[in-house]
Amino acid sequence: MKQHEERGSAAELLELLKGEFAPRQLLSTPAELENYDRDASELRIQPQVVVKARGREDVQKLMRLANRHRFPVIPRGAGTGLAGGCLAPHGGVILALAEMNRILSIDEKNLIAEVEPGVITQHLKDAARLKGLYYPPDPAGLDQSTIGGNAATNAGGPACVKYGTTRDYILALEVVLPDGEVIRTGVQTRKGVVGYDLTHLMVGSEGTLGIITSLTLKLIPHPAAIAGMAVIFPDMGGATRAVSEIMSRGYLPCAIEFMDHQCLDLVRNELPFATSGQDAMLLMESDGPSSQVASDMEALGDICREMGAKHLLPAAGEKERARLWDVRRMVSLRIHDTAGLYIPEDVVVPLSRIADLVASLPALERKYGLKIFAFGHAGDGNIHLNITAEGKEFADRAEAGVVEVLRLVLAMGGTISGEHGVGLAKRPYLTMELSSASIRLQQGIKKIFDPNDILNPGKIFP
Amino acid sequence: MKQHEERGSAAELLELLKGEFAPRQLLSTPAELENYDRDASELRIQPQVVVKARGREDVQKLMRLANRHRFPVIPRGAGTGLAGGCLAPHGGVILALAEMNRILSIDEKNLIAEVEPGVITQHLKDAARLKGLYYPPDPAGLDQSTIGGNAATNAGGPACVKYGTTRDYILALEVVLPDGEVIRTGVQTRKGVVGYDLTHLMVGSEGTLGIITSLTLKLIPHPAAIAGMAVIFPDMGGATRAVSEIMSRGYLPCAIEFMDHQCLDLVRNELPFATSGQDAMLLMESDGPSSQVASDMEALGDICREMGAKHLLPAAGEKERARLWDVRRMVSLRIHDTAGLYIPEDVVVPLSRIADLVASLPALERKYGLKIFAFGHAGDGNIHLNITAEGKEFADRAEAGVVEVLRLVLAMGGTISGEHGVGLAKRPYLTMELSSASIRLQQGIKKIFDPNDILNPGKIFP
Repeated sequence: MKQHEERGSAAELLELLKGEFAPRQLLSTPAELENYDRDASELRIQPQVVVKARGREDVQKLMRLANRHRFPVIPRGAGTGLAGGCLAPHGGVILALAEMNRILSIDEKNLIAEVEPGVITQHLKDAARLKGLYYPPDPAGLDQSTIGGNAATNAGGPACVKYGTTRDYILALEVVLPDGEVIRTGVQTRKGVVGYDLTHLMVGSEGTLGIITSLTLKLIPHPAAIAGMAVIFPDMGGATRAVSEIMSRGYLPCAIEFMDHQCLDLVRNELPFATSGQDAMLLMESDGPSSQVASDMEALGDICREMGAKHLLPAAGEKERARLWDVRRMVSLRIHDTAGLYIPEDVVVPLSRIADLVASLPALERKYGLKIFAFGHAGDGNIHLNITAEGKEFADRAEAGVVEVLRLVLAMGGTISGEHGVGLAKRPYLTMELSSASIRLQQGIKKIFDPNDILNPGKIFP
Repeated sequence: MKQHEERGSAAELLELLKGEFAPRQLLSTPAELENYDRDASELRIQPQVVVKARGREDVQKLMRLANRHRFPVIPRGAGTGLAGGCLAPHGGVILALAEMNRILSIDEKNLIAEVEPGVITQHLKDAARLKGLYYPPDPAGLDQSTIGGNAATNAGGPACVKYGTTRDYILALEVVLPDGEVIRTGVQTRKGVVGYDLTHLMVGSEGTLGIITSLTLKLIPHPAAIAGMAVIFPDMGGATRAVSEIMSRGYLPCAIEFMDHQCLDLVRNELPFATSGQDAMLLMESDGPSSQVASDMEALGDICREMGAKHLLPAAGEKERARLWDVRRMVSLRIHDTAGLYIPEDVVVPLSRIADLVASLPALERKYGLKIFAFGHAGDGNIHLNITAEGKEFADRAEAGVVEVLRLVLAMGGTISGEHGVGLAKRPYLTMELSSASIRLQQGIKKIFDPNDILNPGKIFP
């Protein structure tokens, strides 16, 4: 990666680009570059130049130029990532794909959609809905995030517990390789085993192997009904025992979110009942035929009561459900607002270890002088640990706390990232989870796709 | 691949192996090697030596030796594949993994199983069932095929339409690389996005990238009930319209199999009603809570009648269902028995094109003097075209017919293999589906994993 260590000048880069792109596609003044220095993490890196692509040909042109002149290209969707994956630490060109946002087709007969990478997740969900179809993935930022970014990070969300992650809905991709060549991976059908699975290799590769210029997505029939429920337990142990019981008795809610008592503290005034002390909350939803949803909700309520639930708040209607999710979202915002220093961790542990992990947090908080808010996707063990301190001056302590948390998670058989990815933020911890042999293979694959290391250099690998 | 073109002598190979393995692990006499010359296709290639592995260390030892002396190693499960993937066209050692067949754990709390690669698919299903859990994949040979082989080929089966393929149940792998080193890929949890997805790269790579020595599998709660139904339509068009209606109205049966009139001809005497002419059959199953299964079956029956069904045969009990599947299996056997030459194709087309594809077969049969039996997984467009001729002397004509069928399938937006894989049998057709850029990348990946091309050489790539 030597060639990136010295940044070329932005003016030189701009000169090269002016020959190939229209003026309105090139951003380079401080005002134009505003916001391209960040994603949804706390990282900030000033970019040099942004190119707005209008179609595949633009992407090809840029990659050919980048290969000839060896400057980095960093693909970017909506910039809602949490690991710094779309930032430009080695300078070069940020390739903005947000304007490649056409839904090319929704095929009701074959239950597939063809979209450009800049399509906003919610827009696809809405368009599918109009045809009675459903695109399940629902990452937290779905009203801003793009399908291309979702694919690059294999984005998750509450619905994963029932429906799987973004990966499970990607049938085929059109990809521009770092040298400007185009390949198609995968198939338009629901099965296909011809050659290596390049589609799933691309998914979650964080824009380091190729640039996705079109996606063929699997849709399913839209569920007829959906209902939700919030449940308060006197402690986290009761809440996670309820989750285990629900899953092992064969119920498959389309969301089982939890928040711990520290999160509840932030939104107590929004809830229609008093909570106290170590109370923890589950937020559950079930979808399907309406008769089944009704009987599911009843069964989930019974299991929760059996496991010691204190309050149940059913949310059958659209408005009540929206209200519950507002409370969930409010937690994120308020953590952000109150913390001087904020590190979003995204660990996963086996279901049976969620309560153990959460129980270990107070000791870590005391040891490192931190406050850790835990919420997340209880149904698949994916816990967002929001590690906060009073100010940026505590970064070292917070960092030490993060390392201890990640060690604990790995010892429990977990992983250090369930849906955010590695990017820049988790790159220092990669070797905690992956062996050197595995990293060597992955870097070998990177080199096959991108021999000159021009595509999103410096991400994922230490 | 130069080094494999001249086979070393079996005696030399055996001498090398004797230093490392116990006598009972080495097979080399004609009697011992019987059956290792074949899989379930019509291909036959005489092997040199077989090594039976008892554990990961054996696999590592063999790979180190193979790397030092540059002989091919071909991993083999139960030999039930249909593409010749486990045969040894370049000599070397067939690595028999069937005795590494322990189910290491079934964890009810976290809904995962840990198994060795030689575990027979049905044995895992049975062991999971005893704990109230379900391992959905059900490839046709599931009472013989191994989980390792299922993973190597990303095996499908009737249940895919609801539950997905083998890939969707593999969370993590232990893999011995061609140089004898071990890596772990993936995570034990249901989510994980740390680094490239090597797990799904291994799945479907047909034993060309590494040898799977242990698998962590996702289980789900066992469905409470299941029921089936056979339905006769006056033609294939009616049957496929019913499939489309069923899927787009939001029903998701756990099997929607079809057979065309040529298949029905072979089993007419097994059916409790008269069939004639162009009749086609659907075989459907639905699983879930019993009330839902009952209402689903009613709805499926109504849709079929609406689409012109002639006969409905419900199969609510275990015995009736088994009888339906016996009829389905009988079709395969009878095609085999009656054909002098038999080529199993495994194409997939979009749902909306199934009827078109089947309608195009009579003209192809006449043109090339073939008889083509079509059955398969209608719910995901995966059609087993069993291309037959009266004798082996018609191989050229059959081959020409195959090429025309595959061309047609690709023009319809399909793929040349849904679940059998490429192996040796479909290798000549790979370039019909994949571009040279895609093949170049895949061969680059192969070289990263296996720089000396000792692992299952000569497979997949032309």
